[in-house]
Amino acid sequence: MNIQMNTDCVFCKIVKGEIPSTRLYEDPDVLAFMDIGPVVKGHVLVIPKEHHNPLMATPSEILQKLIVVVQQIAKAQMKGLQADGINVSQANGKVAGQVVPHIHFHVIPRFMTDDYHGNWLPRKYDSPQELDSFANRIRQAIQ
Amino acid sequence: MNIQMNTDCVFCKIVKGEIPSTRLYEDPDVLAFMDIGPVVKGHVLVIPKEHHNPLMATPSEILQKLIVVVQQIAKAQMKGLQADGINVSQANGKVAGQVVPHIHFHVIPRFMTDDYHGNWLPRKYDSPQELDSFANRIRQAIQ
Repeated sequence: MNIQMNTDCVFCKIVKGEIPSTRLYEDPDVLAFMDIGPVVKGHVLVIPKEHHNPLMATPSEILQKLIVVVQQIAKAQMKGLQADGINVSQANGKVAGQVVPHIHFHVIPRFMTDDYHGNWLPRKYDSPQELDSFANRIRQAIQ
Repeated sequence: MNIQMNTDCVFCKIVKGEIPSTRLYEDPDVLAFMDIGPVVKGHVLVIPKEHHNPLMATPSEILQKLIVVVQQIAKAQMKGLQADGINVSQANGKVAGQVVPHIHFHVIPRFMTDDYHGNWLPRKYDSPQELDSFANRIRQAIQ
């Protein structure tokens, strides 16, 4: 394959077959395989075959290919596993919980009976001005 | 706008301006605005202007437009807020924690100093056969 690999990357080794994996789907650009440490059983990873990291530095055409496969996997989890819902999660940076530095989307089937509890704690801004200040800083950095 | 709306949907009301929001970016198809209940301050929502839900039923062309804006926002949070990382999260179904039934991507800036703790607990399959069984059920349902 004429695509860029990183010889030290676990996911690049999975792409090359140097580390075994249970593959669900692949095409020339994208690979979907079972996460061996599932948050909920049936948890799938969707990655580009080419080494990119993080999301911010991944070519947008690759992201567009990935999200379509994420959707295909989510549909298949709903139908094949009779899931009740799906979480899609994508982490960038150690602070965000990213372990393998090769962009990946987690596609996680959810069941009324599963024991995965997220830890989603909505906070509040101290004031409308504080919200505006954050908004302005982001808005001015949009390219 | 000649796009499909759901009159009872909070996000459709935000798109139409019937509910106020702090907008960061918009184009004919996509809107990005501040989440007023931030998991971490600077938390942004990216939605299609047209009403779609969930990810599994959203046209793939719309998903492709959304993910490019997710990337733009993530880049802007890194630069504008000097974030240390980014979490992208997308929930489908109440069981997955979805509150507003209009597809949305959460784009969450992460900081070494933030107090958001995920609850990511990798499990194990009981056996290689169990993993294969889940894989087969998903694989056979991929369309």
